[in-house]
Amino acid sequence: MRWDEIDRQVCSVARALSVVGERWTLLILRDAFFGTRRFDQFQASLGITRHRLSERLGKLVDHGVLRRVRYSERPPRYEYRLTRKGLALYPVLMTLGTWGDDWMDRGEGPPVVYVHNACGKQIRPQLTCSECGEPLRPEGVLPEVGPALALHVLEAQEGDRELPAFPLLSAEVTVD
Amino acid sequence: MRWDEIDRQVCSVARALSVVGERWTLLILRDAFFGTRRFDQFQASLGITRHRLSERLGKLVDHGVLRRVRYSERPPRYEYRLTRKGLALYPVLMTLGTWGDDWMDRGEGPPVVYVHNACGKQIRPQLTCSECGEPLRPEGVLPEVGPALALHVLEAQEGDRELPAFPLLSAEVTVD
Repeated sequence: MRWDEIDRQVCSVARALSVVGERWTLLILRDAFFGTRRFDQFQASLGITRHRLSERLGKLVDHGVLRRVRYSERPPRYEYRLTRKGLALYPVLMTLGTWGDDWMDRGEGPPVVYVHNACGKQIRPQLTCSECGEPLRPEGVLPEVGPALALHVLEAQEGDRELPAFPLLSAEVTVD
Repeated sequence: MRWDEIDRQVCSVARALSVVGERWTLLILRDAFFGTRRFDQFQASLGITRHRLSERLGKLVDHGVLRRVRYSERPPRYEYRLTRKGLALYPVLMTLGTWGDDWMDRGEGPPVVYVHNACGKQIRPQLTCSECGEPLRPEGVLPEVGPALALHVLEAQEGDRELPAFPLLSAEVTVD
């Protein structure tokens, strides 16, 4: 499988990575969450070529993660703002940052700390259950075949499709 | 800046991406969380070359995200298991998957659903505050310069280092 085909996998992680899984893209989005909007600001922060930055920003606009807004008429200049779809990536960036804080620390403490307006405290983001509010840990959560994967399996059994290569469908694999 | 230098940024997101930000790496880890352990199983699921898979697995072992365990003496065969550092990436994969469910759905519903053992319900992962338990939203969380970034700024002021390029340090940038 080629990288540009990963959105064909019946998997939401693969589909998400088909949009944000390129080098630099999540760093562009990190900067956007810190308030960066303009091409030259992104470039100053990331130090990548104009060509690559332009390609990455264009792809994020095409996927509706950023929108391009004109902020000057003469000369015409544009800035890039997070859409609702882009803002919804906040948990991805925060969990990456938390992992970096926990495991890639260099004995200097965290580079950035976060204060929650609602409670006024310095906080850690944590992943919790929507139903009972308890923290989610991999050993306490059971993945099951959902509607989309079940549909693809059914269509494969009827001979209309190939069975998707997905670990959850492999009998050889045991989770422990 | 070259991609292989991003871990020099005083930023936990960049440091995390220096380990897991390559194409395929997060998909390898997705498979590991679903129970995949063996080279040939990873290859069957991802369909990438043995060379690339071997390089990616090797890097994850070098960074202590996976460990290589011999499961057969003759012939010698190895499998790859998540370490504690690897298991700690669970929130990153779950938030990517949730974003994919929400925004990359193709009208077929989610490919995989999750049941929380503790409450027995089908759940959604959500990112919440460690202190008050409320969901975290970007507009409700204030990033502040933390110890590591403050140290680098101080050392830059004393002339011992360059000021890190980081959006939080730029006066031009306004968050709205």
